[in-house]
Amino acid sequence: MPLSTPPGYRSLSDTSVVDFLAALPDIRSRLGSQPWTVREVGDGNLNLVFLVNGPAGAVCVKQSLPYVRAAGESWPLPLERSYFEQAYYHHVGEHVKGLAPEVYHYDPAMFAIVMEQLSPHIIMRRGLIAGNRYPDAARAVGEYIARASFFTSDLAVPLDKKFDGVADFARNQALIRITAELVFADPYRVMDRNRWTSPELDGLAADVRADGPLKAAASRLGHKFLSSTEALIHGDLHTGSVMVTQTDTRVMDPEFAMYGPIGFDLGAFLANILMSYFSQPGHATADNDRRDLQPWLLEQVPVFWQAFAERFVQLWSDLSNGDAYPKNLFSAPSDWPAFEAEQQRTLARLFADMIGFAGIKTIRRIFGFAHNADFELIEDRAARAKAETNAVRLARLFLLEPERFTTPEDIVVAAKGIG
Amino acid sequence: MPLSTPPGYRSLSDTSVVDFLAALPDIRSRLGSQPWTVREVGDGNLNLVFLVNGPAGAVCVKQSLPYVRAAGESWPLPLERSYFEQAYYHHVGEHVKGLAPEVYHYDPAMFAIVMEQLSPHIIMRRGLIAGNRYPDAARAVGEYIARASFFTSDLAVPLDKKFDGVADFARNQALIRITAELVFADPYRVMDRNRWTSPELDGLAADVRADGPLKAAASRLGHKFLSSTEALIHGDLHTGSVMVTQTDTRVMDPEFAMYGPIGFDLGAFLANILMSYFSQPGHATADNDRRDLQPWLLEQVPVFWQAFAERFVQLWSDLSNGDAYPKNLFSAPSDWPAFEAEQQRTLARLFADMIGFAGIKTIRRIFGFAHNADFELIEDRAARAKAETNAVRLARLFLLEPERFTTPEDIVVAAKGIG
Repeated sequence: MPLSTPPGYRSLSDTSVVDFLAALPDIRSRLGSQPWTVREVGDGNLNLVFLVNGPAGAVCVKQSLPYVRAAGESWPLPLERSYFEQAYYHHVGEHVKGLAPEVYHYDPAMFAIVMEQLSPHIIMRRGLIAGNRYPDAARAVGEYIARASFFTSDLAVPLDKKFDGVADFARNQALIRITAELVFADPYRVMDRNRWTSPELDGLAADVRADGPLKAAASRLGHKFLSSTEALIHGDLHTGSVMVTQTDTRVMDPEFAMYGPIGFDLGAFLANILMSYFSQPGHATADNDRRDLQPWLLEQVPVFWQAFAERFVQLWSDLSNGDAYPKNLFSAPSDWPAFEAEQQRTLARLFADMIGFAGIKTIRRIFGFAHNADFELIEDRAARAKAETNAVRLARLFLLEPERFTTPEDIVVAAKGIG
Repeated sequence: MPLSTPPGYRSLSDTSVVDFLAALPDIRSRLGSQPWTVREVGDGNLNLVFLVNGPAGAVCVKQSLPYVRAAGESWPLPLERSYFEQAYYHHVGEHVKGLAPEVYHYDPAMFAIVMEQLSPHIIMRRGLIAGNRYPDAARAVGEYIARASFFTSDLAVPLDKKFDGVADFARNQALIRITAELVFADPYRVMDRNRWTSPELDGLAADVRADGPLKAAASRLGHKFLSSTEALIHGDLHTGSVMVTQTDTRVMDPEFAMYGPIGFDLGAFLANILMSYFSQPGHATADNDRRDLQPWLLEQVPVFWQAFAERFVQLWSDLSNGDAYPKNLFSAPSDWPAFEAEQQRTLARLFADMIGFAGIKTIRRIFGFAHNADFELIEDRAARAKAETNAVRLARLFLLEPERFTTPEDIVVAAKGIG
């Protein structure tokens, strides 16, 4: 029996998406006269994605399905996630112009978003697996997180508006539950939907499940994830949510958006850069041994953090208008040293959060339900197991010896020491 | 021009409150046949409070006014705060039985709550000013905070229900704004509505406004107040919100309820015990020099904390059912040491939060809009100024040297050293 859906909803097909778009005058004029070409390209876990091209332009249509696409109808999921995706863009869009796709239209009955089609962008993860470099991507994502989080935080937004946002996104519970379970719980317990490179990682998976201090650290971060409303966060900001060219970078797919800890987005991207780093030897070919790509990837760690930190502090200094750290408490020059020290203290806290969440996001990709192509596409099982083991070693350091990490260079040194 | 109010609302009078109650069959039978006596006793800052007695029983009626009673109609305030008060009782009531008044009825159109009339209870603050001891009060309030906060936290409540609560209470913005401004901002800036014992404390008030590190610490705590949803907190848990007899203790007036940091409630009560301690010499009389009351008050500090800490950990060990620290991650005996270490680590964090918020709550009562009768009722100006100065000295230690405080005994030692 198919899952029931609300009246007005039907899942789109290559043909019905044309009728859907043809009924929207703005989109019709953007595409130009028919015929249009349609390609369904959703390769993520959750949605239908259509690329529609006409003689005058192109759009992308992303529609929620009433279940988790990667799991099938046995795992229902509310259609409303597309509401939260477009609501997230509504909150951050003006602040991250050029770093996210432009949204043209949202259809609340069809749970479908019509947005900019990015071309010739590819998914950053795929590009890294192919051995490419993206010179501006780490900086752009750091800048993106700084802007999206600052402008939705209590530093920038009066509490009335902030709490309205908190109330709205608190309803994105189905997707918050996915993160709570798949990211913070499943890898640390026996669970049918878990998998890992077996038998090679059987021992390590058992170690993780039996490691009390590791589980305590994971749970502490999970508690923070559930009980912090520091900013509107993307909620799933890995390299598969970033589309790139050599000169352009866009952050996509914010359906997991919620008010949460900024470090969760920072940690997601950091973890995925580091997983790419550890995976590279497994993708070496005669043409490209990846020996240069590995140091380049580690160089992106300080680039990413500095881009975030510098922009976040600059915005906080110049554009604070929220109820946290009220501007008129620090208006005298004699207050500035304490204010600046407090900004640095805040950055140190965000750095520590990033480290912890990066550890969490790594472990879930190796022992949980959703894995990374970075490792999955390594054909040599021993090489794959080694890459995954190395990533887990660093993740455990992040979680169990966080005091070792206070600068991006500390991360680089530890990663080099392992990989 | 009177403030506009929604249709169906009228502020109650000694006569109309009788008609209001007479229309409620349950209340009518609780009170017995008329005539009933009515006394309006609201001496707080915000509301009308009627004590209504009949031959068979008694009730208390608390009704929102469309403005801040202590300030007049020039300071409007949404009537909806009574909704949040009864919603708070709805969430915590069953968990704090015997420690809060029972709610009998809520009228959403009149913004009026009909509840248990506590008798012969008096406001704890008034009792302490009169020189009384309440042997069980500190333990009871510690127990209350442990129960109310645990059972509304991610430790106890699945995230779906928790986030529903967060969404609901995020609308209590008018009262959240009062706290954000009056508690976390005003004492640290020039503001018309501020006042203090002048000229005696003029210098200290100026010092506070010019103290960059103090303002940074206050703002850090204000940021936490705005961006933590650790539990449903009372939001105004000072000794004026506690009613006592020698054997019974009830927590009242949760209209500032919100999802926030547990330490905010802990710190409010601690600060008010300590302010009572510093104020006692100012209330000394020939009959009662208060020399014994002071050490008794300090003894309540460890009693309060231990009652909170022990109950909180016991509930967490026995009744955790939330998405933070998932129970099945720590079910093996080999996991227990790490889990217990994590509980202690959490308590240490809550203790640190308590210390910080206690500092904040002290400073706002001495330099802000709303003052404490503990100090206000000291007739000798020099004695009052000295008591307030001592309280501020401890508050500054709490905010600027928090590392000195890791146990309740550290608080006692510091208070003795000052007072």
